[in-house]
Amino acid sequence: MSEQVARHLASQREAILDRLLALIRLPSVSTDPAFEHGMRGAREFLLERLRALSLQDVRLLDAPEMPRGGQPAVYGAWLGAGPDKPTIMIYGHYDVQPADPMELWHSPPFEPTIRDGRIYARGASDVKGSTTIAIETVGAFLAVEGGCPVNVKLFLEGEEEVGSPSLPALIEANRELLAADAMLSADGGGASGPQAMLNIGCRGITSLRFSLRTAKKDAHSGKVGGALRNALHEMARLIATLHDEHGRVVVEGFEAGAPPMTNALRAEAATLPFDEAAWYALYDATPFGDPAYTVRERTTLRPTVEVNGMWGGYTGEGGKTVTPAEAHAKLTMRLIPGQDPEGAQAAVKAHLERHAPAGVALEFDYTPGGTRAYTLGSDHPLRAAATAVLRREKGGEPALTRLGGTVPITTIFQEMLGMDSLMFGLSSADEDAHAPNEFFRLSSFDEGLRLWPLLLTELGRMDRAAFRREG
Amino acid sequence: MSEQVARHLASQREAILDRLLALIRLPSVSTDPAFEHGMRGAREFLLERLRALSLQDVRLLDAPEMPRGGQPAVYGAWLGAGPDKPTIMIYGHYDVQPADPMELWHSPPFEPTIRDGRIYARGASDVKGSTTIAIETVGAFLAVEGGCPVNVKLFLEGEEEVGSPSLPALIEANRELLAADAMLSADGGGASGPQAMLNIGCRGITSLRFSLRTAKKDAHSGKVGGALRNALHEMARLIATLHDEHGRVVVEGFEAGAPPMTNALRAEAATLPFDEAAWYALYDATPFGDPAYTVRERTTLRPTVEVNGMWGGYTGEGGKTVTPAEAHAKLTMRLIPGQDPEGAQAAVKAHLERHAPAGVALEFDYTPGGTRAYTLGSDHPLRAAATAVLRREKGGEPALTRLGGTVPITTIFQEMLGMDSLMFGLSSADEDAHAPNEFFRLSSFDEGLRLWPLLLTELGRMDRAAFRREG
Repeated sequence: MSEQVARHLASQREAILDRLLALIRLPSVSTDPAFEHGMRGAREFLLERLRALSLQDVRLLDAPEMPRGGQPAVYGAWLGAGPDKPTIMIYGHYDVQPADPMELWHSPPFEPTIRDGRIYARGASDVKGSTTIAIETVGAFLAVEGGCPVNVKLFLEGEEEVGSPSLPALIEANRELLAADAMLSADGGGASGPQAMLNIGCRGITSLRFSLRTAKKDAHSGKVGGALRNALHEMARLIATLHDEHGRVVVEGFEAGAPPMTNALRAEAATLPFDEAAWYALYDATPFGDPAYTVRERTTLRPTVEVNGMWGGYTGEGGKTVTPAEAHAKLTMRLIPGQDPEGAQAAVKAHLERHAPAGVALEFDYTPGGTRAYTLGSDHPLRAAATAVLRREKGGEPALTRLGGTVPITTIFQEMLGMDSLMFGLSSADEDAHAPNEFFRLSSFDEGLRLWPLLLTELGRMDRAAFRREG
Repeated sequence: MSEQVARHLASQREAILDRLLALIRLPSVSTDPAFEHGMRGAREFLLERLRALSLQDVRLLDAPEMPRGGQPAVYGAWLGAGPDKPTIMIYGHYDVQPADPMELWHSPPFEPTIRDGRIYARGASDVKGSTTIAIETVGAFLAVEGGCPVNVKLFLEGEEEVGSPSLPALIEANRELLAADAMLSADGGGASGPQAMLNIGCRGITSLRFSLRTAKKDAHSGKVGGALRNALHEMARLIATLHDEHGRVVVEGFEAGAPPMTNALRAEAATLPFDEAAWYALYDATPFGDPAYTVRERTTLRPTVEVNGMWGGYTGEGGKTVTPAEAHAKLTMRLIPGQDPEGAQAAVKAHLERHAPAGVALEFDYTPGGTRAYTLGSDHPLRAAATAVLRREKGGEPALTRLGGTVPITTIFQEMLGMDSLMFGLSSADEDAHAPNEFFRLSSFDEGLRLWPLLLTELGRMDRAAFRREG
């Protein structure tokens, strides 16, 4: 039955691609209020599309009190498979990262441009491409078969790129509506390409922003230079205390709760062939990081503290002889299984406070907590279904991978709704998500339109009871 | 004869003040091409005023090839005192610092506002106030006496705040026109207030900007975090190597050529009472700097390396999980007598190159060289004339001070035209030059209109030959 659906999707390929390009043209940058029109446009586009595909109960999901930056989610369901079939929550997100630095794009970020078999645009890879594949697969089952192999609830988030601030409130307000046996995510996974891969987890995240002040006002560097603290010197000294020369985090208590690396984990990380030299060549960079671990381990099984932005003083054209009184930094921390987000965040904050000398005032701006790392249990039916599909389509046992990034919803849905999840997105790691010239391969787009019908069919063969066991 | 001139200036006080406010309203920010209209406006205003005051040969001075950022100077002369009287070059500048951060100003920077006996505006203290006093004094002599006690050449620069890039070319092209026996500067000096002070020098300056690169492009911090160098971490580590924890510069070879501190210099620095606690309280800051020196020594007799601006990564609203590939910094170095600007600059550049690890590429953007520190010889007639005026008007021996900042023209005129100079400006150190809410005291404005006629009269009593001796 999935073959007919896949054929239907292939026959509709150009129309589906046009719809993806139309969705990309809506600049849905969730972090910047200036893009509210793009957010609204993307929501309206998706509501209309879900209705056109005959999904039921199509609507926006909101919480009574949305926090600052909160964005409604788009929802739609088809529950006609019956009570013995599992109910699968299908997850995607319609928001995208900011596009700056704009000057580095070779074509406008919100005008998708197809070159060399790739769609170049902000959000093409992360994650409008895979989200479109998931939506259209469900629609094709309904159009061709009059129904899906499983019950389906589509949940399309609008604040993934800002850390899902209102998601817990939104789930709390719609607990019954969102109940499901498991979640299948269009974000993350790396299901495309010749190498069969099964993504079984992701790192967690927490963040911290702070300002540093050394005097009540900026001053003339000629008048005060040599006797007044310079906020930029102090910021540099402070940031430099976070890592050693290999980039290892040296923050006391940061890894509390995380068990030491095991041979089993190292063997798991080694199931995927990985060319470290080629990886560094991709960035035109030299090898870096904790020499005790492989690159794959460093980027998936080790935690990080990263400064994403840092600034202060005069940054305009020309020069200005100022001794700056304030400086700013934005940090994010990637977490591994066992780390408590609030604890890791508190450890970094305490480190900064401990290392700031008298005369240097720190002011923090942060939401306590964050998202834990996630691992899908080895005996879960989602893993069995995906393994079967990949084994059959690509041959051999899929390599086990983890995402170095974070899909907050994975952890949140598990903690709040007891729902495990599998990432089965089609994006590849080299597609410059979060950077200029993001792209999505058309070959991955086409592969997604083949793999998603197979996976829903495989899940439909499983009894709902299999999703209920503990573990 | 100076008393009549001072009385005339006092009677014209309101009209002179109005002209100062009109000059301030012209936003002559030389560092930013967006303010070209303000630069042009200020030049036209001054040309018109010098002509109205009956100066001769009033015109703009230009060089055949002005470098990037070059601005013409305003010139006017009166040479009727005769060949036995000294010819004094009077220096001021019509350009100002940028006004940002705009949001910290309590009244608009280019709309002068008088509050509590102070003119609040960008350029009020640095240095349109003192420049106006100098111009109007010359005009009053011509109006009241029909001539000045000395021959006068007014030279009003337009690029002091950007380091005078085209001044050498401009002097070269107008060598004969600019010949004089000495220079009297309206910039620097601290001649106002109850404490008699004589400024006998200033620190020099050189600058260096650089960008740091760790990869060819920004990347998703989830994908690469832990295995790719973060340009902001590297920038922080690099900047942190420039100073020790007391803010002492630890750059090898930076002080080459500067003789060690002497007891005579320390005694000179101590001639002015200085309340260190009050100084730090002014900035709401805690004591800082090399504990082997007093604050006055640190800010005038010791060199500095200062980061004036530093930035990289995502600095907009919200967050962005990026591992930045590039970071930027703007540095200036304050120099003491003996330091060679090009050598000091090269030492800092070599230090940065030596401390950048493999995999971190630096790209420098700078003009080689800079301005040497300046000291007015102890037996110079400028010093004698100013000492006589201050001794008589304020009582007692004037304290000897040095400017921690830089008046590039002082060194340039000495090196190119063999002309010594005295800074006799009316600004005070606490007037927030180069910072938000810059102001100029009306009491200093009035004092300048009394002191400048006295000083020109005193110089007119000296024989031209006294300016010609060596030393």
